[in-house]
Amino acid sequence: MAGKSEAAPHPYVPADLQLSEYVPVSLPFSTIIGVYFLSSILVTSLVWTLSGRLPKKAKIERLLMCWWVFTGLTHMILEGYFVFSPEFYKDKTSFYLAEVWKEYSKGDSRYAARESGIVSIEGLTSVLEGPACILAMYAIATEKSYSYILQFAISLGQLYGTFLYYITAVLDGDNFSSGPFYYYAYYVVANSFWILIPSLIAIRCWKKICAAMNSEGHKKRKIR
Amino acid sequence: MAGKSEAAPHPYVPADLQLSEYVPVSLPFSTIIGVYFLSSILVTSLVWTLSGRLPKKAKIERLLMCWWVFTGLTHMILEGYFVFSPEFYKDKTSFYLAEVWKEYSKGDSRYAARESGIVSIEGLTSVLEGPACILAMYAIATEKSYSYILQFAISLGQLYGTFLYYITAVLDGDNFSSGPFYYYAYYVVANSFWILIPSLIAIRCWKKICAAMNSEGHKKRKIR
Repeated sequence: MAGKSEAAPHPYVPADLQLSEYVPVSLPFSTIIGVYFLSSILVTSLVWTLSGRLPKKAKIERLLMCWWVFTGLTHMILEGYFVFSPEFYKDKTSFYLAEVWKEYSKGDSRYAARESGIVSIEGLTSVLEGPACILAMYAIATEKSYSYILQFAISLGQLYGTFLYYITAVLDGDNFSSGPFYYYAYYVVANSFWILIPSLIAIRCWKKICAAMNSEGHKKRKIR
Repeated sequence: MAGKSEAAPHPYVPADLQLSEYVPVSLPFSTIIGVYFLSSILVTSLVWTLSGRLPKKAKIERLLMCWWVFTGLTHMILEGYFVFSPEFYKDKTSFYLAEVWKEYSKGDSRYAARESGIVSIEGLTSVLEGPACILAMYAIATEKSYSYILQFAISLGQLYGTFLYYITAVLDGDNFSSGPFYYYAYYVVANSFWILIPSLIAIRCWKKICAAMNSEGHKKRKIR
């Protein structure tokens, strides 16, 4: 339908992806990464410091609180912006969140192309899992009985989403990256944290819950 | 690319979906539904009867064992066949499982079209969740301490998959059904069981686990 003259030039792969009115990334790479990195450090330092004032909190619990706030804000702000901004690639104002996704799309152009699988996964992640992460932080802080099962549920959701993210890419030919750097740095390495950390948390919660069910079972058998 | 003469006629929507060498459904509707219905009844009756011989099994636990076997076999056999049979719509032998998916595609042509989101969801469901369902049945039978957390994990996976299934359809225009009957009977009603039942099981497991964590918490506080 669209003639060659209509195709806006963009840095994404495949080259025949139609993104009319595309506006190139204007912020430098160092700024895009730096802002995310520094604000993450700031937020986690704050949570680490404040959680130190809570009575009897183990270091592992304070670390987990940092993770839940970091990943929750990432889901709600970064991924939430993507979900509700279908035209981010047209942004002319150098708005930070639009720049993030213009840059990230070099690692996976399905974001710019607004592939329905990506939007669905990001939708569930930002709308359901994001707020649930903040609740998980609160549950650890206040030692709620649902703390482990909630952390387990969110971790499983993150794992499910990240697995689907990779499987759909492979099934569709795994050709959405603008080059080896973007492929490995953005698509592989950045996402791998959401395989590694949720796996560790899910295993920890599984063990804690099994231990509790076990002692519950012993108690019941004694009563009998 | 394909001229009008090359397009195989098929009953699916959208009509321009290319399915060369498509072979129409040959088994009658009543046979397709009847075999699934009767074999499900047979399997659940068997599980119900055998579970009755286990010592001290509540009815709810025996019902859950029936559900896990039914849903596990559905995942592994029906959905497993779909995942590993990309050319099911070309089947000329009236093979039952191919007929099931030819028929079901009238409710959602993304199956015949082999949309990557569908294949990914069905892949995780059949390969990971299917065997896990059978493990859940075994865990209930033998009162394993991981029984509730496993049932919770599978239910959450089923919910996540079914949600994504619907969200991707809506994002892609929700126009994959050959008519209102197929839309409601196959796409809406048949799948709704995998929203309803996993929700009920997830809530039950959540409550059981919270209760156990609660009494574990009390015990710890007493020791302090």
